[in-house]
Amino acid sequence: MRREAPAAEIKTVEQRLHDLGFKTGRLEGTEITLIGVYGDITTLPKGEIEELPGVEQLIPISRAYKRAAQKGAPEKPIYQTVKIGNLVCGGDELAFISGPCSVESETQITEAANLVKEAGADALRGGVVKYRSSPYSGWEGLGASSGEALKKGLQLIVKAARAVGLPTVVEILDQADVPLYEDTGVDCLQIGEPNSKNQALLNRLRDTKLPVIHKRGNSLDTEAYLLWVERMMSSGKENVILCERGIASSNRYTRNTLDVGSIAAFRYQLSGLPIAVDSSHATGIRDLVHPATLAGIMAGASVVLVEAHPNPLIAKSDGHQGLFREQLKALVAASRAAWTLRRQLDGGYLPTAALEKAYFERMPDDRKRFFDKS
Amino acid sequence: MRREAPAAEIKTVEQRLHDLGFKTGRLEGTEITLIGVYGDITTLPKGEIEELPGVEQLIPISRAYKRAAQKGAPEKPIYQTVKIGNLVCGGDELAFISGPCSVESETQITEAANLVKEAGADALRGGVVKYRSSPYSGWEGLGASSGEALKKGLQLIVKAARAVGLPTVVEILDQADVPLYEDTGVDCLQIGEPNSKNQALLNRLRDTKLPVIHKRGNSLDTEAYLLWVERMMSSGKENVILCERGIASSNRYTRNTLDVGSIAAFRYQLSGLPIAVDSSHATGIRDLVHPATLAGIMAGASVVLVEAHPNPLIAKSDGHQGLFREQLKALVAASRAAWTLRRQLDGGYLPTAALEKAYFERMPDDRKRFFDKS
Amino acid sequence: MRREAPAAEIKTVEQRLHDLGFKTGRLEGTEITLIGVYGDITTLPKGEIEELPGVEQLIPISRAYKRAAQKGAPEKPIYQTVKIGNLVCGGDELAFISGPCSVESETQITEAANLVKEAGADALRGGVVKYRSSPYSGWEGLGASSGEALKKGLQLIVKAARAVGLPTVVEILDQADVPLYEDTGVDCLQIGEPNSKNQALLNRLRDTKLPVIHKRGNSLDTEAYLLWVERMMSSGKENVILCERGIASSNRYTRNTLDVGSIAAFRYQLSGLPIAVDSSHATGIRDLVHPATLAGIMAGASVVLVEAHPNPLIAKSDGHQGLFREQLKALVAASRAAWTLRRQLDGGYLPTAALEKAYFERMPDDRKRFFDKS
Amino acid sequence: MRREAPAAEIKTVEQRLHDLGFKTGRLEGTEITLIGVYGDITTLPKGEIEELPGVEQLIPISRAYKRAAQKGAPEKPIYQTVKIGNLVCGGDELAFISGPCSVESETQITEAANLVKEAGADALRGGVVKYRSSPYSGWEGLGASSGEALKKGLQLIVKAARAVGLPTVVEILDQADVPLYEDTGVDCLQIGEPNSKNQALLNRLRDTKLPVIHKRGNSLDTEAYLLWVERMMSSGKENVILCERGIASSNRYTRNTLDVGSIAAFRYQLSGLPIAVDSSHATGIRDLVHPATLAGIMAGASVVLVEAHPNPLIAKSDGHQGLFREQLKALVAASRAAWTLRRQLDGGYLPTAALEKAYFERMPDDRKRFFDKS
Repeated sequence: MRREAPAAEIKTVEQRLHDLGFKTGRLEGTEITLIGVYGDITTLPKGEIEELPGVEQLIPISRAYKRAAQKGAPEKPIYQTVKIGNLVCGGDELAFISGPCSVESETQITEAANLVKEAGADALRGGVVKYRSSPYSGWEGLGASSGEALKKGLQLIVKAARAVGLPTVVEILDQADVPLYEDTGVDCLQIGEPNSKNQALLNRLRDTKLPVIHKRGNSLDTEAYLLWVERMMSSGKENVILCERGIASSNRYTRNTLDVGSIAAFRYQLSGLPIAVDSSHATGIRDLVHPATLAGIMAGASVVLVEAHPNPLIAKSDGHQGLFREQLKALVAASRAAWTLRRQLDGGYLPTAALEKAYFERMPDDRKRFFDKS
Repeated sequence: MRREAPAAEIKTVEQRLHDLGFKTGRLEGTEITLIGVYGDITTLPKGEIEELPGVEQLIPISRAYKRAAQKGAPEKPIYQTVKIGNLVCGGDELAFISGPCSVESETQITEAANLVKEAGADALRGGVVKYRSSPYSGWEGLGASSGEALKKGLQLIVKAARAVGLPTVVEILDQADVPLYEDTGVDCLQIGEPNSKNQALLNRLRDTKLPVIHKRGNSLDTEAYLLWVERMMSSGKENVILCERGIASSNRYTRNTLDVGSIAAFRYQLSGLPIAVDSSHATGIRDLVHPATLAGIMAGASVVLVEAHPNPLIAKSDGHQGLFREQLKALVAASRAAWTLRRQLDGGYLPTAALEKAYFERMPDDRKRFFDKS
Repeated sequence: MRREAPAAEIKTVEQRLHDLGFKTGRLEGTEITLIGVYGDITTLPKGEIEELPGVEQLIPISRAYKRAAQKGAPEKPIYQTVKIGNLVCGGDELAFISGPCSVESETQITEAANLVKEAGADALRGGVVKYRSSPYSGWEGLGASSGEALKKGLQLIVKAARAVGLPTVVEILDQADVPLYEDTGVDCLQIGEPNSKNQALLNRLRDTKLPVIHKRGNSLDTEAYLLWVERMMSSGKENVILCERGIASSNRYTRNTLDVGSIAAFRYQLSGLPIAVDSSHATGIRDLVHPATLAGIMAGASVVLVEAHPNPLIAKSDGHQGLFREQLKALVAASRAAWTLRRQLDGGYLPTAALEKAYFERMPDDRKRFFDKS
Repeated sequence: MRREAPAAEIKTVEQRLHDLGFKTGRLEGTEITLIGVYGDITTLPKGEIEELPGVEQLIPISRAYKRAAQKGAPEKPIYQTVKIGNLVCGGDELAFISGPCSVESETQITEAANLVKEAGADALRGGVVKYRSSPYSGWEGLGASSGEALKKGLQLIVKAARAVGLPTVVEILDQADVPLYEDTGVDCLQIGEPNSKNQALLNRLRDTKLPVIHKRGNSLDTEAYLLWVERMMSSGKENVILCERGIASSNRYTRNTLDVGSIAAFRYQLSGLPIAVDSSHATGIRDLVHPATLAGIMAGASVVLVEAHPNPLIAKSDGHQGLFREQLKALVAASRAAWTLRRQLDGGYLPTAALEKAYFERMPDDRKRFFDKS
């Protein structure tokens, strides 16, 4: 409530809340009064309450992304796995997904599939319809022209991946295309950054059985992003993978700013979902993909998404961030070594919740020892 | 080219460019060599060229958003108008568009239409399907449940607006709904901020005859936004209105940061399209909508978009930023006064291009006078 | 308190707060418990309390920048004036301050003073020691080399300004130089953006009688900035002027992003101090200074700070954003016209606090009318 | 040059550059003309040139931070070490620096020194004068009140550290205090984030023999930061350590956004200086310090800076991000394991420069194979 709110206003707010079926409590201070609202506040008409005379602000306490949220205690987090074909993400092993930015031809995607397999990765990615920041780029993917072209493009990547025994991850841009992706045997859908807040698309994906990698919008706060993820999950869908791919900041050097703090927050505080790190888009610079990926794994990622191409020098899109064959091989090996180390170090990770009780009890003694003689 | 690039590499880059049909020029420095590429660089395979050995970077010079771009000289800019029904945007008069965040019932939108009309505004806005940051908000608009509900909702706002002689602006979220909007008589489509980079939706809107207000994504740079606007225009569509509604920054107090510098850049440097300012979303604070709107007009906006509601205290969405009747009336009047002043002041606006020649000629004298005795 | 906090922990937190001399209240919900703390929370050992077992977070309610804060009610704001020499800032007239980025020679600053005077501005600005983003720029101001040089430079600008009857505003970089500025007759000190959080400098300025224009750091939130301003004021200093000069965002086109929403918030919600708008640094583009300045005035600024130079083409620093003589003259006239209009429009500005009671009383009726039949 | 620049203007620009002693070259396109400037462009009067009629923009090519820059080729980078007392930073071993946010009493800093030593860290940090975002926090460090208090505080930390054989790192806020820090035996100075662009302080530190850890300002771009670092180094100082401590973004959850992409860029592309990662300030959340530190090491950091306290629950400042004893011990061990792994993996890191020649030669074949049949 506002500082100057008279008793009548406070009473009215409480009455209105009772009318709406909520229980309330009251905290009266010398300057302001707080009114607590109990129960399921997702049904609270926030706009209305905030407008009642004397109301200063509404402060939400419980997390609104119930399904995407971590369900265990800090000392005993509970993690969930998501399967892409037979590949388990978020489990005991690192899931490494790689491939070209876009499917360019049958030969190209076939060689790419071989390259990804030989490098030791676990799944093949590749776009059949592509985002382009300019409408004049001249290339929006093999499948951009028609439904038939899209179908053919999807078949190419599925065929190439199956030939080497890998599942596929393909980006989807249009909700109308979901059945086509399902029917051609794509194993996982990807929501790109530009569609991270595309409500119509997310609503549609509630109903697919395919797992979805949902990339974080580059201006979404850590928890605001989880609310958009929650949209797909709100009707019961569970097989969703988080993906940090860099956020906007005032930084200019890298294409985006890889937010490892949020990866760590997802893993160690907020969520039980598997987390992917996409350093290709986060840095936009080929030679930084390697160290940034390792950083993402140490921060908490269990899935890696990187672009690689049989010859990135002739890639039709994003070639400057696509890895060369030798680089991919080195990165898969390095990533698995980093994963093994993190899994081992996680055993020694000590959340505050496991320690603070003891320090709390020592506080009077410590305070006396530190400050009474100073 | 890189500092250490040998002559052979330079030669190769030039050869490749010639093969691709481009003419080139060469600038050789003590440290680096620049190669200029002439012609229509939108067809340049940038990825490939950047990857050629020795190439340091590609620096684009000409603007890639040809249709959205300002076509006149700095001293003689050319501005284009866009009609929403009979309302001319970007012309001699300010276009003031207002209405509730969402259409909530027939009575509510009818009263809203009256309120908007009586306040002196020129068009009615209102959403029938709404974005919500949480899937549990309990309200996604009258039209969220089905195509039939959407149709009914659209009819409500069109009817209410026509009764008072106003055209309508309604947000669209799903490309599949375009015919429904067209058929029910909506006068202008709006692309919301979350869909600013929704490629499938933008591609679809190339084909509608309705004007489109395209809100700027909150992490899009000034010119990157114009490239997304260009997407709709690239096949010939012309009736598009720019809209600045606040960008993301490290600021916390306001919901977003209203970027008047970009409004000024659109108006005085980059584009000939009409520019709308949406201070409701830019500030998210009812009491800041008034001054921020006036700021937007002085910076160069010719269209105003603000939320108002017959009783924002009971609005189902965004009530905290909806204006009260009295506030809307005051803002319409203030906005028209600001517009009149800016139109008048624009006569005295002096772009650098109109002056620098004279100062250039004075440079030797000025330099001598200022610095030779100091 | 945390969701799972046992009664003993809650008790302990309350006990600790009582020990510290605070009164508390308690709000018990089905999921969490809130403990209210009453009294002067600036003395609260926040770190300690946040660490007590079971404590989820501390939510501050009262504003911590008491002296910089607005002291009136929303309907009756109280504004304070600050004098620079005889120039009253924040009063009935707009204060227009202009001059070159740096004092370059006696002739240059003399001509600049004349130019500023003739354009109709009210004070002369000019740096004698300059920030430079590169140490190799070759120019850090006339006064950069020694105390003697600084003194001489300060004397030059003071002399030039006094000759035309204008007061002076000069940036200070080093706390050791305060006496020199005071003794040479400078009328107002300026803290540049890079020093916005320079604690040693701000502490030192508590003791000067000169007014200070304190530029906002480009990553400081609206209210965090007011806390840094409060630092100077905390011992009783009152003559401080706020200055918005653009903040960092992901925008690239302009040098910074002019935050008119914060200007409006300072003016209409948060503070009674005069507010300056500096569009030269906010945009970094000469041709945008004019519209951006007008936007700042309409948002709430009562002081204008812009760079101008007798011939910006030969300015030693920041010439690309310095106005030409003709542009300055046009901008002074336009700014005064905008100021007059805003003063007049402010009479019709209606804060929510003046209206919401009536709408609150209409809520039951409005709700019935809008929603009972829908 | 601008699109419409006439030949006379181009000629004039070239003439002016020749007058200034620069050689030029010219690239003429169908739309624009480029003029190349050769030689040491740090002496180029950029403002003037940009103002010449017809000039569109100046595009710098060579790096302006010569001393802070990486001096080797991409395949053979050259790294420099910096000594803090006997601790070598940037060499074969990870340097782990820890300690409390501030020195609070003799007992506290003595116990902190023991704790840091026992955890296996290499240096003791602790502030004697502290930044505080609010002037009313009631605690600005033991040394805030006077020069005598500062001296005594510095002596406390130096004594405590020497007793356990550790060197010390202490933040400095005021250039006037440099001799005091030097004389009391502090081993390394730290420039805090708020002073990252404090020109007077940086200029003063050119002359100290002590090593300096220069924290990156939270709104400084990767390379803009290196230019501020270069300021200290421009007169020959070499013992400087970079420090990434989080940048501002639209993210809200963590206190700042740890920019591992820039750490990677410093290490693998831009600089030869040692890089510190400070996850305490970057995340502001105790439980994220551990994973974020490991991420920083994998990205390229060779120095770790984290806050720890004998009992953070009673710390006078920043206790919420200070590690508990057990957490510090776990993090030192984990960090050394991560360091060992990264050193080993660095052997397999393949920069593009080592590979692109081979792929360049394959381009015609690859293009034919991929695209001729598609």
